Amino acid sequence: MTLTPIEPALKEAAIFMEDVLNELLPEPMGPQARMVEAMRYATIQGGKRVRAFLVLQAGRQFGVDRRALARTAAAVECVHAYSLAHDDLPAMDDDDMRRGKPSTHKRFDEATAILAGDALLTHAFALLAAPETHPDPHVRVELVARLAHAAGANGMVGGQMIDIAAQGADISDIGHITRLQRLKTGALIAFACEAGAIMGKASPPLLRALTNYAQDLGLAFQIVDDLLDIEGDPAVMGKAAGKDERAGKATFVTVLGAERARAQAELLATQAARHLEVFDEKADLLRGLTAYVVDRRA
Amino acid sequence: MTLTPIEPALKEAAIFMEDVLNELLPEPMGPQARMVEAMRYATIQGGKRVRAFLVLQAGRQFGVDRRALARTAAAVECVHAYSLAHDDLPAMDDDDMRRGKPSTHKRFDEATAILAGDALLTHAFALLAAPETHPDPHVRVELVARLAHAAGANGMVGGQMIDIAAQGADISDIGHITRLQRLKTGALIAFACEAGAIMGKASPPLLRALTNYAQDLGLAFQIVDDLLDIEGDPAVMGKAAGKDERAGKATFVTVLGAERARAQAELLATQAARHLEVFDEKADLLRGLTAYVVDRRA
Repeated sequence: MTLTPIEPALKEAAIFMEDVLNELLPEPMGPQARMVEAMRYATIQGGKRVRAFLVLQAGRQFGVDRRALARTAAAVECVHAYSLAHDDLPAMDDDDMRRGKPSTHKRFDEATAILAGDALLTHAFALLAAPETHPDPHVRVELVARLAHAAGANGMVGGQMIDIAAQGADISDIGHITRLQRLKTGALIAFACEAGAIMGKASPPLLRALTNYAQDLGLAFQIVDDLLDIEGDPAVMGKAAGKDERAGKATFVTVLGAERARAQAELLATQAARHLEVFDEKADLLRGLTAYVVDRRA
Repeated sequence: MTLTPIEPALKEAAIFMEDVLNELLPEPMGPQARMVEAMRYATIQGGKRVRAFLVLQAGRQFGVDRRALARTAAAVECVHAYSLAHDDLPAMDDDDMRRGKPSTHKRFDEATAILAGDALLTHAFALLAAPETHPDPHVRVELVARLAHAAGANGMVGGQMIDIAAQGADISDIGHITRLQRLKTGALIAFACEAGAIMGKASPPLLRALTNYAQDLGLAFQIVDDLLDIEGDPAVMGKAAGKDERAGKATFVTVLGAERARAQAELLATQAARHLEVFDEKADLLRGLTAYVVDRRA
């Protein structure tokens, strides 16, 4: 198995997604223009676009049209961006910086950040429901149902609640942290892979392979996030380091220690790649992503 | 035209919707139980359920199954409840009381209220996307698309942004206030009527009649809300009166004066009823609602 160099492909997808989001987000117009600007601010020029990349690459295994995949990828990025805008609020994680820029409520104000987040979440469903995303309404409504599940009370938002409730609590249970992260970050990453497969009407075994891949990859991703919070360079990451520790947050690193945490991330990444054995060389970028996720510096 | 007494029918629908919401909202379980409790707190035992009533009655014109309509009605009530939970936050309208109870962030805390609102909005789309709502995926995905439009940046959330931006500004333009309210409260009320018609595969003229009805009714409803904010009895309303005035908010009453505002509400209610001329006596409750909306005391 040769690994395709992942960084150029990730970069190309990130640039492509800037254009896509620019086109698919509403235009600032009318007296609510400020809020629409905040939606765009929270979403555009944002991060590595790993979730969008997963949608694009998962769909590619089944020959799905890239423009259609891009709409679903944009929906996932809208949900991710909304969750960050709300998570950064003073009543939540109280973060002033995000991706090297002031967080949305710092650049605008709290009310605008709350409403922009609400509108981004709503827009994600508008994108999925439109006929341009897929000609078959069964597929579109399945995407809506799965995203609502992944992002809701028993998915991402549930995970955020557990995370907040756990702060300051004396948690040293790795099972607890794993469950938390499977919801908080894992559910949306898993949806990204599933979505490409749903659009390609993948057979159940191939859908399952991608879901398993996404779950292991998502957990590896989160462990490395926790490591970077301790070891990372704030200038490279574009946000403050050491935040988890100051917040008294239990993470994979506080519970396992850095060395065992890194070993665990590597194990999960290898496991993730193994789930892809049913796919041919078109999946090499997904395979390469597993190595990238553990080696990244930001 | 005889008007059917509306209050018993509204009351019956409100009681029915308590059961429906109780069944269709997630159960508090796991470490995120507190957030799910907040979702239920924000939604259950909530208000007059005018929006749910509109879904049920609009769908009834086309013989749509009541259990299916109830799911869509529940989705609309989830969106309404989320918007109130977020609107009551300190960074927004800063309201301590809602429907005679502490508002969600007062009963829980700000972070929980933000996340519960996010989860309610997400849950609304989960409800619409499920096969139990309608056997035809075209219909379900159309409901999702229309709700996303009504609730998003060019609908309800856009209206909330305009409302917040307008506070303290010297606005005496009735056109501005009308546009604001068409988005902030009108769009979701219009969706409630449209949704019943979409589920019943209504012909375009009948769909249009219901949309026109809903727009006039929604505006009449809002004008009476503004009147009650000045003239209403806080004990009956379950929230503070005089809030708009203290917030320096331009309303139909501050711009038109109470007398002209009331006359305008009555005119709109009459006009709303006139749009229903294409329907038979099954629409009498919808007709009765127009009189109720202007006569209500809370």
